Amino acid sequence: MTLSQNHPMIDGRTQDSALIQALTGKKPSHHPVWFMRQAGRSLPEYLKLREGVSMLDSCLDPAMASEITLQPVRRHKVDAGIFFSDIVIPLRLAGIGVDIVPGVGPVLDTPIRTAEQVAALPELTDEALEPIREAVRLTVAELGSTPLIGFAGAPFTVAAYMVEGKPSRDHLGPRTMMHTDPEVWDGLMSWAANASGKFLRAQVEAGASASQLFDSWAGSLSLPDYQKFVAPYSVKSLDDVRDLGVPLIHFGTGTGELLTAMRDAGVDTVGVDYRIPLETAIERLGQDVSVQGNIDPALLAAPWEVLEAHVREVVAAGKNARGHVVNLGHGVPPTTDPTVLTRVVELIHSL
Amino acid sequence: MTLSQNHPMIDGRTQDSALIQALTGKKPSHHPVWFMRQAGRSLPEYLKLREGVSMLDSCLDPAMASEITLQPVRRHKVDAGIFFSDIVIPLRLAGIGVDIVPGVGPVLDTPIRTAEQVAALPELTDEALEPIREAVRLTVAELGSTPLIGFAGAPFTVAAYMVEGKPSRDHLGPRTMMHTDPEVWDGLMSWAANASGKFLRAQVEAGASASQLFDSWAGSLSLPDYQKFVAPYSVKSLDDVRDLGVPLIHFGTGTGELLTAMRDAGVDTVGVDYRIPLETAIERLGQDVSVQGNIDPALLAAPWEVLEAHVREVVAAGKNARGHVVNLGHGVPPTTDPTVLTRVVELIHSL
Repeated sequence: MTLSQNHPMIDGRTQDSALIQALTGKKPSHHPVWFMRQAGRSLPEYLKLREGVSMLDSCLDPAMASEITLQPVRRHKVDAGIFFSDIVIPLRLAGIGVDIVPGVGPVLDTPIRTAEQVAALPELTDEALEPIREAVRLTVAELGSTPLIGFAGAPFTVAAYMVEGKPSRDHLGPRTMMHTDPEVWDGLMSWAANASGKFLRAQVEAGASASQLFDSWAGSLSLPDYQKFVAPYSVKSLDDVRDLGVPLIHFGTGTGELLTAMRDAGVDTVGVDYRIPLETAIERLGQDVSVQGNIDPALLAAPWEVLEAHVREVVAAGKNARGHVVNLGHGVPPTTDPTVLTRVVELIHSL
Repeated sequence: MTLSQNHPMIDGRTQDSALIQALTGKKPSHHPVWFMRQAGRSLPEYLKLREGVSMLDSCLDPAMASEITLQPVRRHKVDAGIFFSDIVIPLRLAGIGVDIVPGVGPVLDTPIRTAEQVAALPELTDEALEPIREAVRLTVAELGSTPLIGFAGAPFTVAAYMVEGKPSRDHLGPRTMMHTDPEVWDGLMSWAANASGKFLRAQVEAGASASQLFDSWAGSLSLPDYQKFVAPYSVKSLDDVRDLGVPLIHFGTGTGELLTAMRDAGVDTVGVDYRIPLETAIERLGQDVSVQGNIDPALLAAPWEVLEAHVREVVAAGKNARGHVVNLGHGVPPTTDPTVLTRVVELIHSL
């Protein structure tokens, strides 16, 4: 039985939407589309709103986070909002010193590397999540029948930042720790799984109609390491919202080798990176899950005829899946011309 | 027929070495091992020698490049030297403004993005390669029966730096260009293929006993893009040394999906990233090529018993291949304790 057969908490507001239908393997009235990182980055109205406000402060200002979430829905007429936030917000709300340094990424005051540090990690409380719930409430009140997708970083991606203290290319620190100190690793990943799970739950309880778990760095792992040291904790995060019944999406980049393991975390839809032809991904994943993806973000800067041909190919390939939510195979590049995204949505809706 | 059946140019000095035997599918007397990036980075004697000398200047000083190449062979008793150089050295020798910025990587004075810029790229002359040949001659004179491996960046990896002008995570610039301006892309990749091919050839003619083509960024590509826009140019680089008859190695990271395509460039040995279990790689690659790899660099920082168990597993898995050169699945991390590498070599030689 797939999870899609029972979604008690999806309210009437969004259950007939193309997004929810496609995520759960039903037949939507049109091809639903949204873009990872559609909120922020490439939009001039976003850059204007964010002037003088730090990234994490903007995430924690409910009115601002809501407005940023709504901007691309108004502009592009996409089929879903993606909640504007950051995967390190649960850390900040738990009281861990972390900031987003422009041009660098998340930087922690102190990397978390010892058993003592892990044991001392502060718990993320329900009260601390109130700005998130408030932003979601403001957003869904405006969205009407358009669903809002909540999200969280998967425990491995969050833990990778915690151990390195900053972005890294090879994630050597966390990858060493999982083999060297399995107990410390278990403690850290359990903390991260709980924080991400609570973050997902707060969003759904406040009105999000779907949840996406992002594992940005899972592609740095071998399948055996992923299965042993990572997947069980991703399952724990997802378990924290499973009873709420919204469709669950699982995405990572460079994860061709991990696709079926990510499916087996128990999700309705697997996000497919641009590196894997969508037909290949569908063959691997089978017909018990829907797929999401996988327009190559590099082609957003190509001439329209090149991009159009590619989008048509992706949509055609998706017809072999149980359900298909059109998306990019990675986030919107910051340099993207927003008018191109709008035109892509129009094309997809016309097909 | 595989290339390994005919290597007219391997001189008597190294043809019976364990490395050459394993690369070409014969039976070596012991398990050969070397480490990608063994020269430089982690060695105190290297850091001392490099004091006050820029990276590219050290590569172009024949005595220094030779000494740096020899240091890890003396210290670790590895079965091969890897020539100390950089994949952007051919650009510098052709007269393109490029430098290695510490903490950043290769940075070009001017990114190469237009048809005019590509048409104006200066040719790499044989004369300009003389410091490379001299460094190789000095090195092989010291190495005795230990083979020297020459290397070059694969055209895609070189072109990615040329288009972006600096390191990037997603390589959007080159990936857009291949679809948007296929003719400009062809011109750029043909230039890079020629430069890398000449760089490989200079090393072999001066005494290198094998050649490795490194495609660091190939893992950012889908298989169709790799096959159409990248592989033909890698073949061209390899073609430039094929008649010299030395064994050819092809390596990239994140390339699980590309392994057979990389084999099909016509090489004796495929390097396997740490992300793919070696037994999986051998199954995919078959028995017409040898494999090289794939100790996880993250485990070099683990307690010895964890690392030892992993090394034993890798060596055991390699027995199912036509031939196996033990190596890391990615370069030596700069923070590696050199005594650990020496101990790994001792272990492998004892098995």
